[in-house]
Amino acid sequence: MTVHFGDRLYQAVRSKKTPLAVGIDPLYSQLPEAITGHKHMNDEYDAAAAVDALLEFSTQTLRIIAPLVPAVKINVAFFEKYQAEGIEAFYALMAEAHALGLVTIADVKRGDVGHAAKEYAAAYLAQPELVGLEDTVTPDAITINPFAGEDGIVPFVDIASQNGKGLFIWVRSSNPCAGLLQDFVGQDGQRFYQRLAGLVAGIANAKERIGQSGYSNVGMIVGGTSPEESGLLRQQYPSIWFLVPGLGAQGATVSDCIRFCRPDGTGALITASRSIIYAYHRPEYAERFGQDWKKAVEQAVNDAKTELARAMGA
Amino acid sequence: MTVHFGDRLYQAVRSKKTPLAVGIDPLYSQLPEAITGHKHMNDEYDAAAAVDALLEFSTQTLRIIAPLVPAVKINVAFFEKYQAEGIEAFYALMAEAHALGLVTIADVKRGDVGHAAKEYAAAYLAQPELVGLEDTVTPDAITINPFAGEDGIVPFVDIASQNGKGLFIWVRSSNPCAGLLQDFVGQDGQRFYQRLAGLVAGIANAKERIGQSGYSNVGMIVGGTSPEESGLLRQQYPSIWFLVPGLGAQGATVSDCIRFCRPDGTGALITASRSIIYAYHRPEYAERFGQDWKKAVEQAVNDAKTELARAMGA
Repeated sequence: MTVHFGDRLYQAVRSKKTPLAVGIDPLYSQLPEAITGHKHMNDEYDAAAAVDALLEFSTQTLRIIAPLVPAVKINVAFFEKYQAEGIEAFYALMAEAHALGLVTIADVKRGDVGHAAKEYAAAYLAQPELVGLEDTVTPDAITINPFAGEDGIVPFVDIASQNGKGLFIWVRSSNPCAGLLQDFVGQDGQRFYQRLAGLVAGIANAKERIGQSGYSNVGMIVGGTSPEESGLLRQQYPSIWFLVPGLGAQGATVSDCIRFCRPDGTGALITASRSIIYAYHRPEYAERFGQDWKKAVEQAVNDAKTELARAMGA
Repeated sequence: MTVHFGDRLYQAVRSKKTPLAVGIDPLYSQLPEAITGHKHMNDEYDAAAAVDALLEFSTQTLRIIAPLVPAVKINVAFFEKYQAEGIEAFYALMAEAHALGLVTIADVKRGDVGHAAKEYAAAYLAQPELVGLEDTVTPDAITINPFAGEDGIVPFVDIASQNGKGLFIWVRSSNPCAGLLQDFVGQDGQRFYQRLAGLVAGIANAKERIGQSGYSNVGMIVGGTSPEESGLLRQQYPSIWFLVPGLGAQGATVSDCIRFCRPDGTGALITASRSIIYAYHRPEYAERFGQDWKKAVEQAVNDAKTELARAMGA
């Protein structure tokens, strides 16, 4: 039987003893020379070579991080410019991550009005019944954009729930200009993202959404760099898993991020992307590990875990 | 030299003498038997057969509509569940529509924080420099989701502008629940979508965005079913092309839609999707044309054009 997504994530975070998740957003230009120097991968302007390089780098990264963290988030934006081959690589990575025991999150940020939302949901959350695609390993959860409103969200929730999958709904992002729209203050003093969180919680807190761990399969994305009062969402919505991007390259500190964890260390997945996967470009790791990019990535994961654990007082 | 997107759309709407655009959102289950009855396309559960059917239906539809309307909008949501093959079909349709002289809009509703937005923009708006993909015909314009705010929008605007392409930014959608979030009233009485429209207009109205026709290459999506006062956007932002979905199946009437046109009939692209591409399921056309689904589609386009022209007093 399929384990409820909220429970699966709970077990994964408990067993790895960290809320850290790694985000894979690979750009060819940032890959280590050990990858791009390979004869068949050393041409950024050849689609097949570039995709091979992304796939090789991401696969090796998955193998490094799998024993260390509960989950991986892979952003499809970095694969779409390679069209069909990029999409094949994206699904290959989902399968690899799943085989390695990671909880897999596809960062696709899809969103549309109802009848199109249903098609996006079927694409990423249902097991394909199609001959030719039946071996696809779809992600355990996806990220979605809620701008359309409830009837653009519900098709994702329905299809996720029918398939034992999860969702993370974008509520407050981590980019510098996020506040301009998302913090828009309403007539009652409520901010836009708070209203949105209320709408999402109304859906997420339905009894049938909640697993044995007490968590819903429908979570929220709230950036580590969000305004201080967004930490109240943790108290307000105890059943919610928060996906918290922005640690490292986007400027969030560990204390910005851990405010979304419950005291037991569950309840938030804190994702670091560029600061981990490109650790070999960071002076402190470059100096120490030189060309051994894998050691740099591994050390960056362990350092981030230690920093998070220390901040949580463990 | 590349023609400015705002000008290209202006010329297309003037020469076809209608603001009608057709939306292609093909579902296998809705296709005519003349397509799905073909031996190699009659298996909904075979990915290759299903994609062949979607491609055949959509190609034939493009050929019917190309002499009649200025533009086509193709929604990628209906292709993504077929993964790599679906994406190939999507790009094949873009090339076909372009070859037929239609202005092509890819309805992808992508949106993310800046560094990922840049990757999405490159995927859909730049001409691939990649060996293996150099023959790709990218769309003339795409739809985007502005939820991230300005730094999630600007990468799309930059890459569109560098490539002579256009954007339609989702401001107020046409689905029943859209108002719940998008009509959220701020402290100064301004609605969320109005603030968003102001943000988009600030970007779209920069001098270098405006073509000889007086239109920007950055437009807005405003549903035909939007609240009455949204018609003020037309007066407020004279340089904006509005993409107006919702005519027909989503419940907008012609008068709901034409309020976004200027008196000369330009300034809005009014899209009808299911009411046109599935016209053969509508009793009035089924009765008249029977199995001849192409005649039904053609007649539905002509009827919608006539209705729009009449309402505009032409």
